[in-house]
Amino acid sequence: MAALARSPLAVDLPELPPLAGVRFASGEAGIRYRGRTDLVLATFAPGTTVAGVFTSNRCPGAPVDWCRRILPGGTARALVVNAGNANVFTGRAGVETVEQTASAAATLAGCDPSEVFIASTGVIGEVLPVEKITAALPALAGQLSETGWADAARGIMTTDTFPKGAVRTATIGGTPVRIQGIAKGSGMIAPDMATMLCFIATDAALPAPELQALLSAGVRGSFNRTTVDSDTSTSDTVLLFATGGAANPAGADLADFRAALDDLLLDLALQVVRDGEGARKLIRIDVHGAETDASAGRIAMAIANSPLVKTAIAGEDANWGRIVMAVGKSGEPADRDRLCIAVGGTWMARAGTVVPGYDETPVVAHMQGGEIDIAVDLGLGTGRATAWTCDLTHGYIDINGSYRS
Amino acid sequence: MAALARSPLAVDLPELPPLAGVRFASGEAGIRYRGRTDLVLATFAPGTTVAGVFTSNRCPGAPVDWCRRILPGGTARALVVNAGNANVFTGRAGVETVEQTASAAATLAGCDPSEVFIASTGVIGEVLPVEKITAALPALAGQLSETGWADAARGIMTTDTFPKGAVRTATIGGTPVRIQGIAKGSGMIAPDMATMLCFIATDAALPAPELQALLSAGVRGSFNRTTVDSDTSTSDTVLLFATGGAANPAGADLADFRAALDDLLLDLALQVVRDGEGARKLIRIDVHGAETDASAGRIAMAIANSPLVKTAIAGEDANWGRIVMAVGKSGEPADRDRLCIAVGGTWMARAGTVVPGYDETPVVAHMQGGEIDIAVDLGLGTGRATAWTCDLTHGYIDINGSYRS
Repeated sequence: MAALARSPLAVDLPELPPLAGVRFASGEAGIRYRGRTDLVLATFAPGTTVAGVFTSNRCPGAPVDWCRRILPGGTARALVVNAGNANVFTGRAGVETVEQTASAAATLAGCDPSEVFIASTGVIGEVLPVEKITAALPALAGQLSETGWADAARGIMTTDTFPKGAVRTATIGGTPVRIQGIAKGSGMIAPDMATMLCFIATDAALPAPELQALLSAGVRGSFNRTTVDSDTSTSDTVLLFATGGAANPAGADLADFRAALDDLLLDLALQVVRDGEGARKLIRIDVHGAETDASAGRIAMAIANSPLVKTAIAGEDANWGRIVMAVGKSGEPADRDRLCIAVGGTWMARAGTVVPGYDETPVVAHMQGGEIDIAVDLGLGTGRATAWTCDLTHGYIDINGSYRS
Repeated sequence: MAALARSPLAVDLPELPPLAGVRFASGEAGIRYRGRTDLVLATFAPGTTVAGVFTSNRCPGAPVDWCRRILPGGTARALVVNAGNANVFTGRAGVETVEQTASAAATLAGCDPSEVFIASTGVIGEVLPVEKITAALPALAGQLSETGWADAARGIMTTDTFPKGAVRTATIGGTPVRIQGIAKGSGMIAPDMATMLCFIATDAALPAPELQALLSAGVRGSFNRTTVDSDTSTSDTVLLFATGGAANPAGADLADFRAALDDLLLDLALQVVRDGEGARKLIRIDVHGAETDASAGRIAMAIANSPLVKTAIAGEDANWGRIVMAVGKSGEPADRDRLCIAVGGTWMARAGTVVPGYDETPVVAHMQGGEIDIAVDLGLGTGRATAWTCDLTHGYIDINGSYRS
């Protein structure tokens, strides 16, 4: 298909400075695309710990199976990512591709294959030609550089229209640490444990179990509260690598680090939504007054996944009736006669009926913008949650009616 | 918005012959549309029993609340249906509209208001001007006719592009009976108890509880297994009226009647899917080999609700990888390495990988047709279910990005 225009919601890739002990190289393996990078190799300093979360899809790809299997080891020395072929539903061939890739990268990195993480993204059901990967890896190993972050962010893209990255700093026990990551994703986005692909590194020194607890908690309010099209991918993977280079004290309070990590995860997740296939508007949905936070979360996601809400917003129509419908279809506790709905800060519906004579002018202006805010008050309790999505446009149909051709 | 082109999947309205004791009249109340009928009145002979199923949406419209309240009475003498305004989320005004409508129709029909069923369809959140309805009803009462079925099928349409009806015959204890109904619906279709609006009458003599059991069972495999856009409406209503005019013996075996009713319900439900907003292809999804029938049903609906599956089919792409994704995201028991998928009768994927050298020619031809068959074998057990949906096209975006304007 023709190259996609850059999303109108795109943000610029921030400067991703070197992080000691983390090196990247990107190259063209020619797996599916021509004239662009599609293979990324990364290596990590000895002693790097790792945490990961993966798709809840019951038919995961061979790379997801592999990462799940080696994750309990808790250490990582290399990462191999390819774009254009997801190595999903490829049977025994897919398993062998993963094993041979890990083995080849382990030789180059001087580590055990069980320390090589692998992620693939792209078309489902076609055998991934492992020889193209193993042939390209040695050259990449010779080009590894601590300045390779931005090229790596580009090398993992598929239908993405802009590269995605984020940087945060924090302190642990008085020691400054940095966290930075890259992500890709644009369609088949309704992460249930994570989203498409996201790789984060920090120089913090943290044992793998602690790192895992931080990551698992962090994705709950970020990746797991975003959706482009309600379709949970078979390849969702978020990996967090901690080199320990910052030499922060062990056992120190992690509140600042946790806040920075959560903020970075949300930043990357929202960049994925901003690149949602065909997206022209970023939609934030705040639900409060629900019986519980979990109930608020399910209501927010029901609104975020409603094609009727998303097409109305694409048409710049503040159709709050469809928001009522989506609240009701969630199946969560709701009392129609207490329900209040605001768009762009203007309360349009309150206590079961339209607000008489509400001012439409600010609502119309808000709907014409690129960022849409919806607030829902259930009036039942103190449960709250926020979800993010994008609008549903002709662009989504264009992209997905012809992806394979 | 401009008038919509007739769905390429449309079927002709069958002849809907008079059914003794059931009379219809249709007229223009000018509620929202101009130059077309938008109000339907029906009356039923004394002694008519009634059964109903309604939306599971937690924010139902005032007419749904009303019907639920009077249904336990078990008898029906009149029905009032309007198109263009759903009378949903209209607060106290909506309740009064329903009460005044029932009262006006009861006076005209010579019955109690608790025997008047009401259904409304159209925009959510705008007050329905009851005076337009009560002003129009007397003239309609003067035009009631047993030949009014086809006009009624047209009078209840909103974004529908063709009127929907079906007729079946059966015998009960040797006595011939007839069942016939009309339906409307095109978007906001993911019925959980029923779909938008469907009205069925039979001359069978059946007590209300028996009628209710038959209807509740019948919608499970028909309306509740169809989806256009995964959005469950606030107005879904199916009503079944039995006049008793056929004077069949009481207590006779109902197997033949049940089969005819089930067949009629599926016929009407599929007409709704054929008129799905923007639909160009009718998609049937047969799932077997699941652990249970319920599990098979949830998997079939996950496929039917996947925007990626539906856009692929719109693009005539037999993208079975997306079907794998949808099976996996359902969360139901599935073993990727036993999963088999066929499109148009050709098994493309088997036991966790593509079928080597499968013949693409019949698949390509099948995808170009108007009716698409998908079969999924989980290979786990004997559970089976079928679901129906339509493709997701530019037409859906066109219709729903500008519905209110």
